[in-house]
Amino acid sequence: MKLPGTKYDIDTPSLLVDYRKLTGNIQKMAAFFQDKSAKVRPHFKTNKTVEIARLQLKAGARGITCAKVGEAEVLVKAGIKDLLIANEIVGGIKIRRLIRLLKKGAEVKVAVDSEENIRELSDLVSRAGVRLGVLVEINVGLPRCGVSPEKGVELARLIEQSPGLTLRGIMGYEGHIVLSEDKKLREEECRKSMTKLIRAKELIEQDGHQVGIVSGGGTGTYYITGTFSGVTEVQAGSYCLMDLRYDKLGLGFEKALTIRSTVISKSFAPFIITDAGEKTMSIEFGMPELIGHPGARLVMLSEEHGHILVEGKPPELKVGDQVEFYPSHICTTVNLNNRLWVLDGEKVLDRWEIAARGMSQ
Amino acid sequence: MKLPGTKYDIDTPSLLVDYRKLTGNIQKMAAFFQDKSAKVRPHFKTNKTVEIARLQLKAGARGITCAKVGEAEVLVKAGIKDLLIANEIVGGIKIRRLIRLLKKGAEVKVAVDSEENIRELSDLVSRAGVRLGVLVEINVGLPRCGVSPEKGVELARLIEQSPGLTLRGIMGYEGHIVLSEDKKLREEECRKSMTKLIRAKELIEQDGHQVGIVSGGGTGTYYITGTFSGVTEVQAGSYCLMDLRYDKLGLGFEKALTIRSTVISKSFAPFIITDAGEKTMSIEFGMPELIGHPGARLVMLSEEHGHILVEGKPPELKVGDQVEFYPSHICTTVNLNNRLWVLDGEKVLDRWEIAARGMSQ
Repeated sequence: MKLPGTKYDIDTPSLLVDYRKLTGNIQKMAAFFQDKSAKVRPHFKTNKTVEIARLQLKAGARGITCAKVGEAEVLVKAGIKDLLIANEIVGGIKIRRLIRLLKKGAEVKVAVDSEENIRELSDLVSRAGVRLGVLVEINVGLPRCGVSPEKGVELARLIEQSPGLTLRGIMGYEGHIVLSEDKKLREEECRKSMTKLIRAKELIEQDGHQVGIVSGGGTGTYYITGTFSGVTEVQAGSYCLMDLRYDKLGLGFEKALTIRSTVISKSFAPFIITDAGEKTMSIEFGMPELIGHPGARLVMLSEEHGHILVEGKPPELKVGDQVEFYPSHICTTVNLNNRLWVLDGEKVLDRWEIAARGMSQ
Repeated sequence: MKLPGTKYDIDTPSLLVDYRKLTGNIQKMAAFFQDKSAKVRPHFKTNKTVEIARLQLKAGARGITCAKVGEAEVLVKAGIKDLLIANEIVGGIKIRRLIRLLKKGAEVKVAVDSEENIRELSDLVSRAGVRLGVLVEINVGLPRCGVSPEKGVELARLIEQSPGLTLRGIMGYEGHIVLSEDKKLREEECRKSMTKLIRAKELIEQDGHQVGIVSGGGTGTYYITGTFSGVTEVQAGSYCLMDLRYDKLGLGFEKALTIRSTVISKSFAPFIITDAGEKTMSIEFGMPELIGHPGARLVMLSEEHGHILVEGKPPELKVGDQVEFYPSHICTTVNLNNRLWVLDGEKVLDRWEIAARGMSQ
């Protein structure tokens, strides 16, 4: 496919990625981990784009973290095989998809937090003649998955007795605190979470099992988890493209993705209507931000329309002009789109398919 | 592809469609319009699925309404050619896509609400040697697109003078009121909107132009707009699959779509965690509803997790069991998924691709 010359030649709405900011963010994270024993295993759920995973691996990432089997399938197809699915994989259909990846030589690890799941995994994996690495998920505060450190010991013991399974370590995600804008609170609560995670590691080791991987952390806490004694891997993902929420934390990463949109109507003053709505940009963490037009802001999205309210001096925008927005939540915004346009300034460098987008499984 | 036997053989999370409820909804709408001069032109944005559009056309729909060029392209490829894109199509790239559809013999009509857009359409369409039908969009209350009836006359005049364009009629969408649960208010405000729309028709006709199509309405107001003197087409879409919001209006359509999901964790009481999150189900109109488990309700979604809070007697759900949810907003939920599983009771009848899903343009 012939690439458009500049961003003005791209149809809208579209996602634009500033290549220098993206690679700058990846380099900043890589530099942080260069002299640490822990390494980053970037989360694929944010960008779902093989080209970004490759840049992260090239910069020294240990492997890739995924949220589901569909994402792992895309990565394995692209030849990226050291994967942690940081989630419980439940049900025969999905476990058989996992087995197909193992048979292709992928080193896919999964999280577990129940006896039922361990038994089902062991049954299907051992019958298929393959081995699966599992991490016990410890609940470190987020009201979601994971067990207590004490219960973690029981699960570790069960894993060690289960044919086809190898205990590879533990994980715990401090998602309840990773976005807190109160730096002191965020760091304190993160340390509490990691203390709980390391307690699980110690209890499991005292019980006679080896805990290789200790995985936790996100973009808002990577510098705490990544230096916390005993943690071996950090699951941060958003740092590569960033969004308005994480930008508020002052982490030093740059917002590398914008949504480009065309003004399609100015008929109903004081509104200016553009062609990017909630089927293009997510709003569960607030409205995306209109860039570069003081006195005007995005106040509402329809499915296919952005409603900009003009409150100050009207911006000099006419029908057909293009505007850009910063996303409020990068992960769910990328998931709504088909591709990323990679730019050097206004020049189009490349077009990357968001290969794992929109997969529900 | 071999179909799964029953819904228990489908991977989760997945969208299930009850075929009898779907066809019942389509028949109910068709029966309403059977003796009316107005007809329904169902909105494709809700289901984005060619098979559903075909069922609607077979039941007597006049054609299909779309929200964007990408949806029209999917329909034209499937041989469905009488289309209204109920939106302004702005910018050379998108207009050239429109021209390609016209050259394939598709009868695609679009909405306009500005001189700039009319001039750009006329310029590109006439140079391509095709003709495009346009509808003037009248603002009937929604703070979005559309002009006043008086301004509508000016635009109609400009269209009649513009090479390549044919004035086909007018449209006005009462989206500000279509979801109101106050029936009296909804009906009164809808009549006000339609009065404004018909005033535009009269003014344009008095100015000497022919107004063929008069299009408005949605699922919450179809019985008002569809019987309002002068309205010729109704754009309702959600009635075919329905959702929790529209169900509150007591319209007599049945909720035909559910999201099926697997319990993946019960480790962190009182929560039960399932594998359907906000990358599977939308939440801008509220939480989806857990079906058939009193005392438990969905209270939060992560990207890939549903957080069910158990408040009463714990439901007898174990890890691996499946549950179903009703969507709060059908249009944005369907947009997140790849396919619909069509069921007769528990039996799988068919698998339909959501062919126009997730297209941002």
